[in-house]
Amino acid sequence: MTQLEIARSGIISPAMQRVAESEGLDAEAIRQGIASGSIIIPANSVRLGSVTFCAIGKGLRTKVNANIGTSSDCRSLETELEKLRVAEESRADTVMDLSTGGDIGAIRRAIIEATTLPVGTVPIYQAAIEAIDRRGAIVAMAADDIFDAIEEQARDGVDFVTVHCGVTRAAVARLKRQGRVVDVVSRGGAFLIAWMLHHDKENPLFEQYDRLLETAHRYDVTLSLGDGMRPGGVADATDRAQIEELVTLGELVERAWAAGVQVMVEGPGHLPLDEIPANVQLQKRLCKGAPFYVLGPLVTDVAAGYDHITGAIGGAIAASAGADFLCYVTPSEHLSLPGVEDVREGVIASRIAAHAADIVKGVKGAREWDLKMSTARKNLDWEEQARLSLAPERARGVRRQRVSSGQACSMCGEFCAMELVSKHLGTKVVRC
Amino acid sequence: MTQLEIARSGIISPAMQRVAESEGLDAEAIRQGIASGSIIIPANSVRLGSVTFCAIGKGLRTKVNANIGTSSDCRSLETELEKLRVAEESRADTVMDLSTGGDIGAIRRAIIEATTLPVGTVPIYQAAIEAIDRRGAIVAMAADDIFDAIEEQARDGVDFVTVHCGVTRAAVARLKRQGRVVDVVSRGGAFLIAWMLHHDKENPLFEQYDRLLETAHRYDVTLSLGDGMRPGGVADATDRAQIEELVTLGELVERAWAAGVQVMVEGPGHLPLDEIPANVQLQKRLCKGAPFYVLGPLVTDVAAGYDHITGAIGGAIAASAGADFLCYVTPSEHLSLPGVEDVREGVIASRIAAHAADIVKGVKGAREWDLKMSTARKNLDWEEQARLSLAPERARGVRRQRVSSGQACSMCGEFCAMELVSKHLGTKVVRC
Repeated sequence: MTQLEIARSGIISPAMQRVAESEGLDAEAIRQGIASGSIIIPANSVRLGSVTFCAIGKGLRTKVNANIGTSSDCRSLETELEKLRVAEESRADTVMDLSTGGDIGAIRRAIIEATTLPVGTVPIYQAAIEAIDRRGAIVAMAADDIFDAIEEQARDGVDFVTVHCGVTRAAVARLKRQGRVVDVVSRGGAFLIAWMLHHDKENPLFEQYDRLLETAHRYDVTLSLGDGMRPGGVADATDRAQIEELVTLGELVERAWAAGVQVMVEGPGHLPLDEIPANVQLQKRLCKGAPFYVLGPLVTDVAAGYDHITGAIGGAIAASAGADFLCYVTPSEHLSLPGVEDVREGVIASRIAAHAADIVKGVKGAREWDLKMSTARKNLDWEEQARLSLAPERARGVRRQRVSSGQACSMCGEFCAMELVSKHLGTKVVRC
Repeated sequence: MTQLEIARSGIISPAMQRVAESEGLDAEAIRQGIASGSIIIPANSVRLGSVTFCAIGKGLRTKVNANIGTSSDCRSLETELEKLRVAEESRADTVMDLSTGGDIGAIRRAIIEATTLPVGTVPIYQAAIEAIDRRGAIVAMAADDIFDAIEEQARDGVDFVTVHCGVTRAAVARLKRQGRVVDVVSRGGAFLIAWMLHHDKENPLFEQYDRLLETAHRYDVTLSLGDGMRPGGVADATDRAQIEELVTLGELVERAWAAGVQVMVEGPGHLPLDEIPANVQLQKRLCKGAPFYVLGPLVTDVAAGYDHITGAIGGAIAASAGADFLCYVTPSEHLSLPGVEDVREGVIASRIAAHAADIVKGVKGAREWDLKMSTARKNLDWEEQARLSLAPERARGVRRQRVSSGQACSMCGEFCAMELVSKHLGTKVVRC
């Protein structure tokens, strides 16, 4: 049985018990959330003994995913394993292996072997690459190749898969009628569109969705319904192609639930910041409360080299509006495959966004964390501040660069506002 | 006459003409904004021939300030001049010299000499430091020392001064009655509170506000009414001490206008992100549309080492809600005096926030910039993308690290979504 079916049967699984403990919530509340579809635990049944259970959804801490993986230009497994290590050290909640270069099957299995974090993939990459290797072109891919790749990856233990089932002929027709500045920026979406246009056929992942559900059900692989039509620039945001796809995804969510399959929905992408709350609300309504997994959103197109910041702005707004899961964006986005330090910067930026949202979402423990930090700050307790920081080593390093001769920091030195006011106001050092 | 008085008399000054050109707006609209108080041009009459005119306020591009300056622990003038250079290179709109270490008069004059950007200061720092030097304690400062420092700095050509006129006995009483986690984190506010409590007297900047207005008027120095009561942790946000001060600042704005003095209002600080729009709206209402200059806001307390990101999230939300001027926050905030690279990272993060807001504010040219970038992206025109980037050198550097063998970037290599879809959808390369 999948976690969804277990929850519906009224049973609290060990996975539910474990996530309840880590969230500080009641296990019964977790069970109800999973039964209703508003919470998922991506955990392939093959990995039940080894994966760290991580719940994503309503009422829970906003989670962060780090994308790693090779490209045709950068094929080193060692580098990807180092990125994995840094993603874990920076406290990503999940990783996705998006490899498209080298022996991607071996890379995927090495990553799954090396981590206890839930691992996601985009199986169509494998199908497309194998189509080039075996048949000379992506469009020479057979529909069965896609399902074979999904089956193989499920067998390998992948916990969630991005599947662009909503890239339908109807959505492509709307895209064509409307026009766009940046057309399609989703790689998986692009593979499917190329195939559909070349063969003049419907998307196999849409047409044979039941076949996909059957595999997902067998391994309890969580479906992450991809947004192949996500906008690639703010000029294309919230357009008819994007919303057509989202409406379809809403229907596919209900079909997944009917089949006992866990499911979440992916979202944009590039969005002006004032359109973010409406996008989240629309997803929540159309998809009946299924968890929302957003890429960024990126609130401007012009910050190449700093898109982790652009993504943190959008991510904080999206999560505070109800998005459940943030896919990180690194400083290398739009320019190159991320390197190891990009992974660190990307995870930290997304964690800041997630936590800023958790404060206003009322997530258990979120405000308490800030209160502890503020108290340590008031007490000029520098080691406690570093320990409580989202990135302790960085905090210690920055402070060490320019140390003060006094109790305070080198910004104010002998003119520390907090020291001065404490003395004159007679406020005591607080312990919380 | 001050710019405010010139505007009221119906005349368009050279400064107004110049900012109209740089904003791409009508000079008469700028004049009306200045006359109404919703726009300021901080430009000391001493510097009229040398300062770059920069307008801040309603309908204009959101501006970014970079704080530089020594502390008692870090006193090098050379380092501060290097920070100034990097602030200019990163395209800060203004700088504030917050020096509190070394010969601060000489440092201030060197900074004004070295830049054409508008320069702001916090004159009470000078008064407090001189009080220690001459009389042995900050609280030994005389009220006249504060006004002498303001007069001296105005004579030096400072374009805007932060003056914590709203730190009144009433506000301090509210602070005491209510209690706070982090008390007071404004350095200038703390100096005044220490003095007021020690002497049991009212804030001289409040009590002798007309004297301040007289000096400001003489040199057309813009007043930046400081928020000495700004929250230093999310637990203290939007509390009674903060709002008491803001109500007073609203009254002082009207008195400045009556005296023909240009004025803006400073704001928090640490705020949960859902409280930011209300804070902006409150300032706009209570202060009758005077420009709002925010520090951050910082949407969580726990990101020490990465507070430029925390500040970018808050700044984007604040500016999109109507804030006009963002004071940058650097990665060193809460830990140490910023170094040279911190200045760069801080300015860029704030510029991202400002521009993301300008897109939704409808600022002239904002969406057009993103459209050009998206078009260059679609065309895989890498040099044009770098040129259009907010930080061109960084964009070029990131791309160079991992170059692709093909037309695309090393993230997707031969599997570029845009290339693939262009080919199959038959969309043309666009020129905008």
